[in-house]
Amino acid sequence: MFDAFMRMGPDELGEEMVAAAALIPGCFDALRDRAVASNVWYTRISDQLVAELVGGRAEMRKGEQTRQEIIRKAAPIFNQKGYAGAALSDLMRATGLEKGGIYRHFSSKEALAAEAFDYAWRETLHARIHDLDTISNTVDRLKQLVANFVERRGTIPGGCPLLNTAIDTDDGNSVLRERARKALRGWRSYLISMINAGIKAREIRPRVDAKKLATLIISSLEGGIMVYRLERSEEALRGVQAHLDSYLETEVRAPSN
Amino acid sequence: MFDAFMRMGPDELGEEMVAAAALIPGCFDALRDRAVASNVWYTRISDQLVAELVGGRAEMRKGEQTRQEIIRKAAPIFNQKGYAGAALSDLMRATGLEKGGIYRHFSSKEALAAEAFDYAWRETLHARIHDLDTISNTVDRLKQLVANFVERRGTIPGGCPLLNTAIDTDDGNSVLRERARKALRGWRSYLISMINAGIKAREIRPRVDAKKLATLIISSLEGGIMVYRLERSEEALRGVQAHLDSYLETEVRAPSN
Repeated sequence: MFDAFMRMGPDELGEEMVAAAALIPGCFDALRDRAVASNVWYTRISDQLVAELVGGRAEMRKGEQTRQEIIRKAAPIFNQKGYAGAALSDLMRATGLEKGGIYRHFSSKEALAAEAFDYAWRETLHARIHDLDTISNTVDRLKQLVANFVERRGTIPGGCPLLNTAIDTDDGNSVLRERARKALRGWRSYLISMINAGIKAREIRPRVDAKKLATLIISSLEGGIMVYRLERSEEALRGVQAHLDSYLETEVRAPSN
Repeated sequence: MFDAFMRMGPDELGEEMVAAAALIPGCFDALRDRAVASNVWYTRISDQLVAELVGGRAEMRKGEQTRQEIIRKAAPIFNQKGYAGAALSDLMRATGLEKGGIYRHFSSKEALAAEAFDYAWRETLHARIHDLDTISNTVDRLKQLVANFVERRGTIPGGCPLLNTAIDTDDGNSVLRERARKALRGWRSYLISMINAGIKAREIRPRVDAKKLATLIISSLEGGIMVYRLERSEEALRGVQAHLDSYLETEVRAPSN
């Protein structure tokens, strides 16, 4: 669903797609405001398609390619070192560019960090959700989502961008903090939509509180990531997974008749 | 128990105390090695007692007092801004000292940050566990520990020092990272001891895996702290608390005969 979604223009989006848009920083608000910037939708389109779309405007294309390349290479630096810890020298080394070459494309370190976060979060989510639509039962889908979270950790080196950026900015940088808040809201909205759809389909017990369940899943997995990152051992994450699996089976899945 | 423990010399410590020592960074290893540095034990002793102990050595006492004061004032800075984000100017402003006045007492920023972390973690733990020994049943004690975690968050401004330092250093600073690892190990060892004592006393079901339960409690609470810090809303933490309370009642507490 994710890939298909990212290739669509706003006119093609149905309700399910709008719910999924909650996942991509910036998209949800843009949709709600009925003012979707087309560049958001095309970020992940293949190079070939970009070439077709922009036609002969080779110079602009190259500038945008460089910009995306800087974002892609800066993302692991910010994710590993944090905002304050990411030195210009680190960014220059990673991108192979001089200071001027980087800041021609971004107004500030903060602007680059914000784009790098959005990129890192998009890639992380993609790894966590991209194959869920092949699973029909909602509880099974939630379990696969938990498994994806545990097993597909290495998308962007440095751990979960949401956890890192939340902790890095909770007392400071308001631009980055707002990006992290949006990411969390989107991630939770996606889970809530899925859980509510499961209740409607009678796959999930009617008394399950979708927001509470979504928050529990997010909190325990993110806390498990902290322990995993510190100890470099999967044990905590696997423990959280086993606990959530058991909880989903015994307290969330609707009993079959 | 905590206060009593901190006032004791190593000779007075029983087995329970040794288990509790796991909580204080540095103490556990020191005990194991039978080489307890007395200054570790007396850190929290009242000023009056310090005065009695060191007698007329006023100059040394003053130097140590200044050192402790720097640690106490630097702790919130490191906890809020992270290691890289804590600038010398921040530390100077917080302590009211010049650069030379700070670094006369610490060999490096890293050395100060490590002491500041140990202090912040000790204070945080004290808030989380200091009244638990008034509760006799182990499951009730675990529930109170969870409640303390949720309700006593503001000990050191900036959120949980363990979570912050773990995320801040998981890709970098090995000295600080090791302090955070020790803090996590100690925190978990304390919980494991408590849970195993509960199994022995038949208050906790015999099949409960103490390490898994301890890790689950830590992971979900720390993840809840992340959401709380980002959203400035207690909702996630209260949700985690309700979930853990219910789990402790239904799956952990031994059924009464």
